[in-house]
Amino acid sequence: MADKKKKLSLIVFSGDFDKLVAAFTLASGAAAVNYEVNLFFTFWGLNAVKKAKGRRFTGKGFLARVFGFLMGGRKNVPLSRMNFGGMSPRLMTGMMKKRNVATLNELVEASIALGAKFYACEMSMVILGLTLDDFIPEVKEVLGVAKFLEISQDGETLFI
Amino acid sequence: MADKKKKLSLIVFSGDFDKLVAAFTLASGAAAVNYEVNLFFTFWGLNAVKKAKGRRFTGKGFLARVFGFLMGGRKNVPLSRMNFGGMSPRLMTGMMKKRNVATLNELVEASIALGAKFYACEMSMVILGLTLDDFIPEVKEVLGVAKFLEISQDGETLFI
Amino acid sequence: MADKKKKLSLIVFSGDFDKLVAAFTLASGAAAVNYEVNLFFTFWGLNAVKKAKGRRFTGKGFLARVFGFLMGGRKNVPLSRMNFGGMSPRLMTGMMKKRNVATLNELVEASIALGAKFYACEMSMVILGLTLDDFIPEVKEVLGVAKFLEISQDGETLFI
Repeated sequence: MADKKKKLSLIVFSGDFDKLVAAFTLASGAAAVNYEVNLFFTFWGLNAVKKAKGRRFTGKGFLARVFGFLMGGRKNVPLSRMNFGGMSPRLMTGMMKKRNVATLNELVEASIALGAKFYACEMSMVILGLTLDDFIPEVKEVLGVAKFLEISQDGETLFI
Repeated sequence: MADKKKKLSLIVFSGDFDKLVAAFTLASGAAAVNYEVNLFFTFWGLNAVKKAKGRRFTGKGFLARVFGFLMGGRKNVPLSRMNFGGMSPRLMTGMMKKRNVATLNELVEASIALGAKFYACEMSMVILGLTLDDFIPEVKEVLGVAKFLEISQDGETLFI
Repeated sequence: MADKKKKLSLIVFSGDFDKLVAAFTLASGAAAVNYEVNLFFTFWGLNAVKKAKGRRFTGKGFLARVFGFLMGGRKNVPLSRMNFGGMSPRLMTGMMKKRNVATLNELVEASIALGAKFYACEMSMVILGLTLDDFIPEVKEVLGVAKFLEISQDGETLFI
């Protein structure tokens, strides 16, 4: 155990701004102390790794386009607490900047720079009509549950 | 370790449609590759294993009936993102069917067929005034925290 | 392994009443069967350990005060399901009392009495403009991700 790299794997299910901040804080923080870090993006979490093209209609078919519109992308993620309204990610980003805390984009960049690996959930992509081409290039692989369990094995896994 | 069965335990707290899809995808996927899978249903998650009787008044006492009405059952679970409205589980199920992805009901059936074990949280049942008789027969046991920790020990546990 | 104390660590991200009930049920239940229990409060979860001063304006700066107002404290935590309105934590507490289940406050007290350790997330505190003085005295230490990973290592960790 002593000479084996420690491992943290996150199933990033949520697309909420605050939960994404938490996920990438954990990811970059763990990678900074030399953990192997695996992020498995699924459902709304896929938003965090979509190419920045603003709120656009992606995917194939009408229903996929409806979801694509509702999901948007990292720029459009809501806060998890409903009573904040659309103001809040901006408000929170403002507070993060003002206090010299890394913003969500900076945390994503830091996670990448520190070697965190990004994976996309196969089934979610099928449901939402997304392809690997819809994501940032750091998402290198599409996985199902079995493969994810293999990758995350013998480490700590969190569902966010 | 090599000859020991790997284990995945899920604390299914949420009753949201999309989170239940994620939970049962993980459960059936893990069971398919020979993991021991334990699902511990608590709070809103108990909805996923309630007998299908539509939206009815269950439990004892007025407050329990209010919760029972609000909770409904697997047919009435909402999506976790508020801006989707009641349309969405149906819309998502439609997309799942259209794309030949297993629906929530199919994922539950698959988890059962592959040997995932279902447990209900004792305290939630007391709060909500539910009895074992309110659940599908696959829920065989009612557990408290201590017993759940024993069952899930030496495996991976996720809170969903 | 046999003579080592088992460990449960919870990242308490949510400030929702029902999720806090789940977190402190797990914490007190695990501590009762002699687990080492670590609670790491972050973002909305910090609400659970704020000094009881009612809904007040805490922190420094205007934005911090807005968040402080929106967050409130343990007395003001909402339920995670939106369709319950402000009624519900009270309704749920009512049911818990009626059925002789420990209330949220009692679960927090039990966790403390049984030796669960409370930590506050450094970055959230910076964002929200909070200091150690804003919390109950049981919160003894402020941690970053690296230190939390060290403390929770070789145990089970859940993100709530």
